[in-house]
Amino acid sequence: MSYRHNIQLTEDKKLKHFLSIEGLRRQHLVEIMDTAEGFASVAEQSVKKVPLLRGKTIVNLFFENSTRTRSTFELAANRLSADVLNLDISTSATSKGESLLDTLANMEAMQVDMFVVRHSTSGAAHFIAQHVPKHVSVINAGDGAHAHPTQAMLDMFTIRRHFGEFAPLNVAIIGDILHSRVARSQIHALTTLGVNEVRVIGPKTLMPCGIEQMGVHVHHDLKQGLKDVDVVIALRLQRERMTGAFIPSEKEFYNAYGLTDETMTYAKPTAIVMHPGPINRGVEIASSVADGPQSVILKQVTNGVAVRMAVMSMCMGNVAARGGM
Amino acid sequence: MSYRHNIQLTEDKKLKHFLSIEGLRRQHLVEIMDTAEGFASVAEQSVKKVPLLRGKTIVNLFFENSTRTRSTFELAANRLSADVLNLDISTSATSKGESLLDTLANMEAMQVDMFVVRHSTSGAAHFIAQHVPKHVSVINAGDGAHAHPTQAMLDMFTIRRHFGEFAPLNVAIIGDILHSRVARSQIHALTTLGVNEVRVIGPKTLMPCGIEQMGVHVHHDLKQGLKDVDVVIALRLQRERMTGAFIPSEKEFYNAYGLTDETMTYAKPTAIVMHPGPINRGVEIASSVADGPQSVILKQVTNGVAVRMAVMSMCMGNVAARGGM
Amino acid sequence: MSYRHNIQLTEDKKLKHFLSIEGLRRQHLVEIMDTAEGFASVAEQSVKKVPLLRGKTIVNLFFENSTRTRSTFELAANRLSADVLNLDISTSATSKGESLLDTLANMEAMQVDMFVVRHSTSGAAHFIAQHVPKHVSVINAGDGAHAHPTQAMLDMFTIRRHFGEFAPLNVAIIGDILHSRVARSQIHALTTLGVNEVRVIGPKTLMPCGIEQMGVHVHHDLKQGLKDVDVVIALRLQRERMTGAFIPSEKEFYNAYGLTDETMTYAKPTAIVMHPGPINRGVEIASSVADGPQSVILKQVTNGVAVRMAVMSMCMGNVAARGGM
Repeated sequence: MSYRHNIQLTEDKKLKHFLSIEGLRRQHLVEIMDTAEGFASVAEQSVKKVPLLRGKTIVNLFFENSTRTRSTFELAANRLSADVLNLDISTSATSKGESLLDTLANMEAMQVDMFVVRHSTSGAAHFIAQHVPKHVSVINAGDGAHAHPTQAMLDMFTIRRHFGEFAPLNVAIIGDILHSRVARSQIHALTTLGVNEVRVIGPKTLMPCGIEQMGVHVHHDLKQGLKDVDVVIALRLQRERMTGAFIPSEKEFYNAYGLTDETMTYAKPTAIVMHPGPINRGVEIASSVADGPQSVILKQVTNGVAVRMAVMSMCMGNVAARGGM
Repeated sequence: MSYRHNIQLTEDKKLKHFLSIEGLRRQHLVEIMDTAEGFASVAEQSVKKVPLLRGKTIVNLFFENSTRTRSTFELAANRLSADVLNLDISTSATSKGESLLDTLANMEAMQVDMFVVRHSTSGAAHFIAQHVPKHVSVINAGDGAHAHPTQAMLDMFTIRRHFGEFAPLNVAIIGDILHSRVARSQIHALTTLGVNEVRVIGPKTLMPCGIEQMGVHVHHDLKQGLKDVDVVIALRLQRERMTGAFIPSEKEFYNAYGLTDETMTYAKPTAIVMHPGPINRGVEIASSVADGPQSVILKQVTNGVAVRMAVMSMCMGNVAARGGM
Repeated sequence: MSYRHNIQLTEDKKLKHFLSIEGLRRQHLVEIMDTAEGFASVAEQSVKKVPLLRGKTIVNLFFENSTRTRSTFELAANRLSADVLNLDISTSATSKGESLLDTLANMEAMQVDMFVVRHSTSGAAHFIAQHVPKHVSVINAGDGAHAHPTQAMLDMFTIRRHFGEFAPLNVAIIGDILHSRVARSQIHALTTLGVNEVRVIGPKTLMPCGIEQMGVHVHHDLKQGLKDVDVVIALRLQRERMTGAFIPSEKEFYNAYGLTDETMTYAKPTAIVMHPGPINRGVEIASSVADGPQSVILKQVTNGVAVRMAVMSMCMGNVAARGGM
């Protein structure tokens, strides 16, 4: 990957775009979590709205349908008092033969302030960030198998709110590591924040080559992998993988890697269970675990709004003033 | 039906959800109409907006497409200054295999305040209300053949604005009583508000068994049924019923049950004509009647916004504070 | 065409609807541009929002999908603080067999203030304007091959911002004049504003009969037509025309009428290049011209928001107060 990762930062190293965890320093991730902490309390208030981004226009540029992710960004933008424009690209000008760059240039000419981008191609958000003017921010809401950095940061925020610190923690990520942009972003975030150990657990067919070079320990046995673990993260198994060459069947995957009351006994008793959602009950995780006392899955969703508000407001506060274009 | 109808009320008998007229008392219906009266004047102002629900998030959860109903709820929410999230469920996470309860739990975790639910299955809104946390309200925007309580209340509000009182009125509901959630809700509202007489008029094939037990008089002859009637409510005949076993043809239905200048002479000369819309001209009703001086059909639409504002603001004012979850 | 064009004006000749340039006087067009000038500076501010239309409801009534045009109107409405309701008519009540007039009557009964109408049939916006109550404004966002007046006005505004005056200018419009609502509106605007000369350039198959009667000079040769021209407007060639009887092929059209660095040398060196977008690179225009120093294509987009804000706020300021219905 030859991305110039500092594209995410202003000259004085402040967050300008939020494209991937890779390329960010510990201080950036901490600042995101500190800012999110403030917004988490906004959501508890009767009026869940702050006027921070009033008069700003945020465009949800979704090339790939994801109602849930779009909704959380729309909610976050609403609570920052921004105006939101939802663009379903499959039905828009690009289908009239207009190029992505022309569509972008047009939206920019309408003086929008931020693009939230979801795309099935890895690198799409970086590409867009390279082509927007100085005063426009880009947030990656998931690009191919590459990154999903707001998901990773809401996971980190959830871990910090629970444990208070990262240094002593052992974290296990379970399932389809190979296709998961979430896993990739989580690994970067966890190692940047300095947890004690990151493990990835899954069958060989779902494990990328050379993953060890990301600083993780690879396990193919769930029970061994869960030993002494504080944070258990189950990944979503995409339905389209289930009947392919990757795993023999849902049932076999569940038997080998499903989080159940029984397999959870191998982790620490104080461990928490996370999942990016939507969950496949009885595939990655038993209902008793998903809904049980160790699960923080719904807290992740709640924290997701606060983290997105944090990232949006930070990027917007750090971009060049419009006159500086 | 084994719904615990008091699910709609708080412990001190205030409206918390609005799911069906059944289970509510006269005082609730009167309070809705009194509140709507205040909002009706808001719509006359130059700035048609009040800040009552500022910072609240209302989710339009439509499992069944209904642009018109969704629009009235969206308008009502806008005029209360709430933020609105439109969820088209057919394209959302449920199509990724997520269960309804998981979708709900996720939306709730985003700290939304209200669900407006439209569903083709009777009881769906009740089911959802049973599963939301204390601080979330649910409004039924139509569930199967069961209930459409905001429609019934806008009808009551329209009648009250016209006649001032309910006690002396004879009301006739005409058409497809069997499949009509609107009729069911209207009958409950009319009897709760104590009108003199409720009649249902239609062919046997469109009349539910045992409907008399709801306190109505059944007529199969339109002219007889309209005698001495003050309020004439035509129901929409769903196109899909017209060529089935229920009625021989549109034309025959119109001949037997269509509201025309001629058939309207059988009602009182002071009678008003109502219809929930969209109307089928020349099927349930002649254009001369729909657009004539006795018609209050468009007033119903106007009143619909005020009634929805009333129900939304009342429910929201009565739910537990978020901290009380 | 038998439109009563004064339908656009109040009794004291103020703009009430904005349906076509035809029927408006120079003073109206100048007032739109003067008002837009004020809004152009709003977009430069950090808070791009004015409270002019707070509490007003604007309905985007799009019978024809056009994400880009809808977005600019939605943005303009947001920046005027209006509430916006997007109605995709293909999925709404009209598909339940409701007539357009009934749909309109219903929306009006919800006390909306403005319809922005896009329709594939010429005259649709006029028809709607003839049927709305006094306090409702209608803006034509493109009707068939008839008119697209906000596009024309953003073009005029762009020309005025560049040259300061219209009298000395020669303007050439190139391409599919026959099917272009944009061209028709531009010609009316340019002649009303009194430019020196308007030329239309294109093959005979794309030139309407009797176009000379609009006060334009017809050219079939691009180079001759561009001589001494100050403003070069390329029209979009609809893909569906390209393989029909109208032109032999994209390539041949480009060879004969494409704006290239070479053909542009025939216009004045100070000429600007305009296009309503989305552009077909290599069909109407070379990338080097579209992205070159003479191009003001993106400025047109920026100006489009200001012009739409101007038209919306002017119409809304001039309609009868609601009580006067």
